[in-house]
Amino acid sequence: MRSIDIGSRQIALRLLFFVSSLLSTHAASRCSNDGSVVRNISEIPSSNYGRDGLSHITIAGAVADRMKEVEVWLQTFAPGTRTPIHRHSCEEVFVVLKGAGTLLLGSSSSKYPGQRQEFKIHANSTFTVPINDPHQVWNTGELEDLQMLVIISRPPVKIFIYEDWSMPHVAAKLKYPYYWDQECLDSPKDEL
Amino acid sequence: MRSIDIGSRQIALRLLFFVSSLLSTHAASRCSNDGSVVRNISEIPSSNYGRDGLSHITIAGAVADRMKEVEVWLQTFAPGTRTPIHRHSCEEVFVVLKGAGTLLLGSSSSKYPGQRQEFKIHANSTFTVPINDPHQVWNTGELEDLQMLVIISRPPVKIFIYEDWSMPHVAAKLKYPYYWDQECLDSPKDEL
Repeated sequence: MRSIDIGSRQIALRLLFFVSSLLSTHAASRCSNDGSVVRNISEIPSSNYGRDGLSHITIAGAVADRMKEVEVWLQTFAPGTRTPIHRHSCEEVFVVLKGAGTLLLGSSSSKYPGQRQEFKIHANSTFTVPINDPHQVWNTGELEDLQMLVIISRPPVKIFIYEDWSMPHVAAKLKYPYYWDQECLDSPKDEL
Repeated sequence: MRSIDIGSRQIALRLLFFVSSLLSTHAASRCSNDGSVVRNISEIPSSNYGRDGLSHITIAGAVADRMKEVEVWLQTFAPGTRTPIHRHSCEEVFVVLKGAGTLLLGSSSSKYPGQRQEFKIHANSTFTVPINDPHQVWNTGELEDLQMLVIISRPPVKIFIYEDWSMPHVAAKLKYPYYWDQECLDSPKDEL
């Protein structure tokens, strides 16, 4: 029985090793690119990072591609889905490739995001978000995906998330590393 | 005769004023955006800037949109047309939207661009150009336009142009402001 027990344990350990190597290979593929100069965007790993209706691809990023000054994402939002209300201390440019939706834009100039402005966005439109202004993008459509190229400066992104539009700026919660960077970047240690 | 002379001169001066005000209005439209948060890309001014077969649109830029860290262009190259061989001290990401072509990529690590590498590019592909590496993008197709979104850091761009691949890096000629910025930015004065 003892030898069978050891055998089972060995099999279990081998299985565990096999599964963990699969997982680490998967993480590695998102944490470093394959070294190709020209890449097919369809072959870059995508994920919803735990958010229903999202597809995120980092086309060129700080983590996998060692970008230091700009980062480019391709994001697709299913009908009815949206970003959190958030802000970040970097420039951001959106290019809407398909679909339609709404940009909600608050202000960083008072203690709260304040009365947000609402703008319709549509395929072939572009907009920039001023540094530190809280904002949210919705796919308000019922049928079509909203797909956008998103360009940020100062990668990797450090995002402050608001629970709602009445939350003071100082209460917004830092999420760093952000979802698509967290399997590749260490979390900073809390300051004492 | 004297009064007719003065009259002709006045008409000529008025015509000159009218033409120059038209020209300055045209320049102003490319030197500042219209203040809209969301803009239709089709309505942003485009030009070939004196290069046959090129269409350039600055989607978000240092000059018109006061971007300080990133700039986004939409560029379309007719079959057979190309960028100059050039380098710049900034990060650059390309996203190919349609068409196909060739990326030629030299190196900044020796005195000359050296033996350039050649890569095929195609719709839905992406590539980055390392800082200061000389490069050139060709539409090598015969029928279809090559259309790309181009993202750079450190705008406005300062471009060094090579006459050919055997030109030493130090001989490459600075073109600043670059063609799409020059009607809005003053040229720097030569240093004494």
